[in-house]
This record gives sequence, C-alpha cells and structure tokens, in this order.
Amino acid sequence: MLHLSDAMRLAVEASEQVRGTTSPNPPVGAVILGVGGNVVGVGATQPPGGPHAEVVALNEAGAQAFGGTAVVTLEPCDHFGRTPPCTRALIESGVAQVHYAVADPVAEASGGAQTLAHAGIVVTAWHDPAPVTQGPLRAWLHRQRTGRPHVTYKYAASLDGRCAAADGSSQWISGVESRARDRLERARVDAIVVGTGTVCADDPWLTARAPDGTLADHQPIRVVMGVRELPSGSRVNDDAAPTRIVRSRDPMDVIEALDDCVDVVVEGGPTVAGAFLRAGLVDRITAYVAPIVLGAGPAAVADAGVGNITDAIRFQCESVDRLGDDVLISLIPR
Amino acid sequence: MLHLSDAMRLAVEASEQVRGTTSPNPPVGAVILGVGGNVVGVGATQPPGGPHAEVVALNEAGAQAFGGTAVVTLEPCDHFGRTPPCTRALIESGVAQVHYAVADPVAEASGGAQTLAHAGIVVTAWHDPAPVTQGPLRAWLHRQRTGRPHVTYKYAASLDGRCAAADGSSQWISGVESRARDRLERARVDAIVVGTGTVCADDPWLTARAPDGTLADHQPIRVVMGVRELPSGSRVNDDAAPTRIVRSRDPMDVIEALDDCVDVVVEGGPTVAGAFLRAGLVDRITAYVAPIVLGAGPAAVADAGVGNITDAIRFQCESVDRLGDDVLISLIPR
Repeated sequence: MLHLSDAMRLAVEASEQVRGTTSPNPPVGAVILGVGGNVVGVGATQPPGGPHAEVVALNEAGAQAFGGTAVVTLEPCDHFGRTPPCTRALIESGVAQVHYAVADPVAEASGGAQTLAHAGIVVTAWHDPAPVTQGPLRAWLHRQRTGRPHVTYKYAASLDGRCAAADGSSQWISGVESRARDRLERARVDAIVVGTGTVCADDPWLTARAPDGTLADHQPIRVVMGVRELPSGSRVNDDAAPTRIVRSRDPMDVIEALDDCVDVVVEGGPTVAGAFLRAGLVDRITAYVAPIVLGAGPAAVADAGVGNITDAIRFQCESVDRLGDDVLISLIPR
Repeated sequence: MLHLSDAMRLAVEASEQVRGTTSPNPPVGAVILGVGGNVVGVGATQPPGGPHAEVVALNEAGAQAFGGTAVVTLEPCDHFGRTPPCTRALIESGVAQVHYAVADPVAEASGGAQTLAHAGIVVTAWHDPAPVTQGPLRAWLHRQRTGRPHVTYKYAASLDGRCAAADGSSQWISGVESRARDRLERARVDAIVVGTGTVCADDPWLTARAPDGTLADHQPIRVVMGVRELPSGSRVNDDAAPTRIVRSRDPMDVIEALDDCVDVVVEGGPTVAGAFLRAGLVDRITAYVAPIVLGAGPAAVADAGVGNITDAIRFQCESVDRLGDDVLISLIPR
C-alpha cells in the first residue's frame, strides 16, 4: 500500500519525464491506486494529440481502477479538445477518489473537480502544490498567467562571476555533474536562446544529449538573436534540431517569435543576458557557480541597465544545491 | 545527564566565544561533567597570560570534578609556559576521564594525553575532530602546520560577481543577516587587510561592532597595503583599533608584517584579492553572494594571473549556507 504523498511524488516524477514534449499542453502526471492502495497505473501527458496523463494511467489500470484512487498533478480537464475530457474517463473507470495538486487555471478546461464531485467521486485539492507549481508545471502555469513563455536565464560562471577566462576559453567552467544535469534539462524545454556573439565565438551545437553523447529524442528549438551575420557552416544550422534566427537585439522580439513555446532558456552570453534582465523578462536565474577563480575575462552579465546599487535587479533565492563541487543557485524575481 | 557529544559541542561553542582574543595561544574550550554526567564547569582560554580553558572549567567545577569527565577541544598542554601545565590541574582535580578533540601539534606542549594516562586517567581522542579543526582551531592549527597566519579572503558580491555598481556604490550588496555575521566575525580575527584603494574609495572604519553599532571589546588590527598615500583623516587612522600600514603591493610583505597573527582576513578590493590569490596565499574564500544582478561595476577579483581556463585557481566547496536571502559559500584550496 502506497501513502498518498508517495503517490503524488510518483505522479510528479512521471510528469517530469515528459516535460518539454507536451507543449502547448501541460506536462501532467497521474497515478492510479487500486482499492488496496497498490499502484495499478502510472501515466504522463503524451505529445499533443495523444492521450492525457489520466487516460494513460487508467488504461494501464484497467478494471483495477474501480473503487480506487486517482492522484493527479493538475485538476483533470473537463472539455473536448483534441482528446475527450479526462473527467469522463475517470468517471467511467469507477474511481472513488481523486486528489489533484493544482487547479486548472484555463477557463475552458476547468470545472473538472466539480464535474467529478457531481458524479459522486470524492475530490480533494492537495495540501502542498509547491513541488508541482515550482516543478514540472512551473512554465506552463506561468504561460497561462502571463500569456508569455517562462524564461530561465541559465549560466555557468566562476566564483568571481566570469563566464570565460581572459583568452575566451570556457570549457569547462562547471563540473561533470553540472554539465550532465544541464544536458538533461535541455531536453525538457522548448527553446534555447543565445546571441550571435556566442555562435560566432563558440560555435555551439545547442542540442540536448544523453550522458553518452547521443542526441536526445526531444530537441529544443535553437534560437539565435542579434544582427551579426552567422558564419556559414555554423553548427546551429545543422539538421539536429530546428533553429530560428531572430534578427533583433530586442528580447521582446524573441519572446514574440517564440509565441508557441512554454519553457524557454536563455543561455547567454553577457549581452543577451543583460538585455533580458534589463527588460524584466527573466522569470528565473539558474546559476552554476564553480569553485574556481579567474580574475579576468567577461562577466556573466553585461549592461543590465544598473548604474547604482539601489537600482540593482533584485531576486530572491528559491533554492541552493551542491552539484558535485559546484553550487547551483536558483533565483526568482522578488 | 549530558551526552558526551553535547558536551563536546558545548566545549566548541565556548571556544568559539573567545576566538580572536587568545592569539598566539589557541582558543580552546573545556567542559567538566560531574560523576552523574551533569555539567559542573565550562571554560575557554583566557587572553595570553590568563588561565587555559581546562583551568577555568575546573575552577568552576571545584570538588565536583572528582571522578568526573573533562571534555576538551585540544589535547591538554603538558608544559610550563606562562601558566602551569593543564595536565597537572586535571590530575589534581581527580577527573577520571578526559576526551579531547585534537592532538596538540606543538612539540613542547604535547604529550599531555600520555601524562594523563600515566596518572591513571582514561584518555580518549574524539572520533570527529572536524567541528574543531574546521572551526575554532582552524587558523591556529594552520599556523602551527605552516608557520604562517591563516588567510581568509572574504567578500560580498552580486550573483554576477560585482563587488560594486557602475558608479562605485556598494552599500549594501549583502543583506542584514550577512552583515551582522560579518561584523561578529571581525571581532574574532587578529587582522583585517585592505588595499589603499579601498581606503581611498570607501574610507571604511574596519572595526568590529556589536549589532547595536558599539565597538566590540576585541578589535582586529587594521592593515592597509599598497603604495598610495592615504588621505589625512582616513578613518583607519582613528584610535578605535590598531592600524598597520604595509607600503607594498606584495602579499608576502603583509604576511611577514603579521607574523604575530594567527587569523587574518583579506577584505579586498579586487587588486588585493587578485594579488593574494595569485600568490597562493588564500587558505579559505568566504563569499557572500547576494541575489542581485548589477551587470556592470568592478568584479570581486582582478588580475589573479589566470589567462586560460585550464589555469583557473581551483578550490573545493567546504560549505554552502543560506543567510537571509544571501548564499554564503566557503571554499578551501583543492
């Protein structure tokens, strides 16, 4: 028998696995417990047009769902989109209880809890939505709330804030654990933004890769912003992943060009980072701080429009983790 | 009845309270437990010429020490210095057991454990000396090992590594909790080093102060290095604390001028930090990283002699703590 908290954790993990592959739909996770409390089904949202998490989990559970409990990271949808409403599937399965972590903020899809309750199912909103709202559904909820994709500015720097040494070399500032996590994370977002300067200087692939170096199944869109010409044969122009060139220095133009995206990562360099920060378009900073000192070389952020300490762009610390010998700091706007 | 681990923790805390006031002697803590295991005495090293921790604690315990246990952060000394050997005081007190965290590395003072054992006392080396060796006795042990004072490079910077904004303003980059901890820490070291540049730019007092702003009892020596003339009336020349001017840009000259010190903190700015790091004279970095972005202004460290990423000065992370909204990162040489 599984404790409900463990079931919710399992649902969150299931949704985390599909993060990046479901846009514009939310990456949702669902766990079905049988009457005895054992896990009889686990599911996560399939790519657009495919079944939602609840349906995947219920299909696995089959008749064992009857009288059981569904644990879902998002309130089950109540409308016909590309797929029938999940509420119907839950009611037909005969589950007796539904626990959901986050209420659906989309007007046309909401009302699921009410529909289930009317059908005699005991419906409960989960007491601790934070692992979902700050986790797999963070970007999607942000998009629903603001109409804009969620933007993470991500970088690696030395303790003294340099993203490269005096001669421009930067491989590698962060350690193996940080780089492995970063490669995994790339496969879970919709787009990665860099400037023409980064492409000209480093010629990066900007692809998501498995630990063994092979390309991940899901590749984020590679976005290059700026007005400089890219060298012919730049790696971002290969066919490993889609690429969009935004011929502008204005971050708002990038946001508009990524209107179909939910989760966007800005990978720099300093000028691009400064532009996004200055425009107030950074929803999270993910900083890999390496235990090294360089004492020269470019700072991670340039020209953020701050002249005086009182004008500093202020964030708050969301989490601090050690990752190998690096420190991973996550900040959100204050 | 107190668990021995709690007694050792209490001894460490007692020694932490006198850190900075005992040089050149080590700041030691001692706890005496009576036969029933209750605390009958707590002591810490008094300023040079005063009694050692064991004697302070035994004086408090009086006859209650008989048959009891002494818990000490450093192996009791066995020689006549300015005070009689602590081994004699322990033996005369009639304690049955002695636990010590760290063996005395000083040849002339060591042998205490053996002397106590010969007197019939059960002597035990503590299983986990780290809270002492990385804590109150860190600097003193370093001095014994290397013959040089322990040097901590301490700074506060924005997430992007700036120690001031574009216009030079820097009050305050770090939050109230960080600054309170820093003021407290100042009272526990022997000397604070800055460059003439910092004095000319900021005119700091460099004094240790209580939370209410009053001067602490113990003031570190204020050390100004560099060849620029200081403005007359610079605050470091007031009589709140002793000041030493080292007319040199070479960190080794500073180290030599602080030959009577055990625990030294380098507070920057960037040039001084770079010089100490380049010279390999930094034994610990204490970085207060604030959750703000500046995007311009001086980097915390300048000119550390690193040209390429492979030449980066590498440290290892010793601890990471959140302090209010700041992140406190402690690094030691790899």
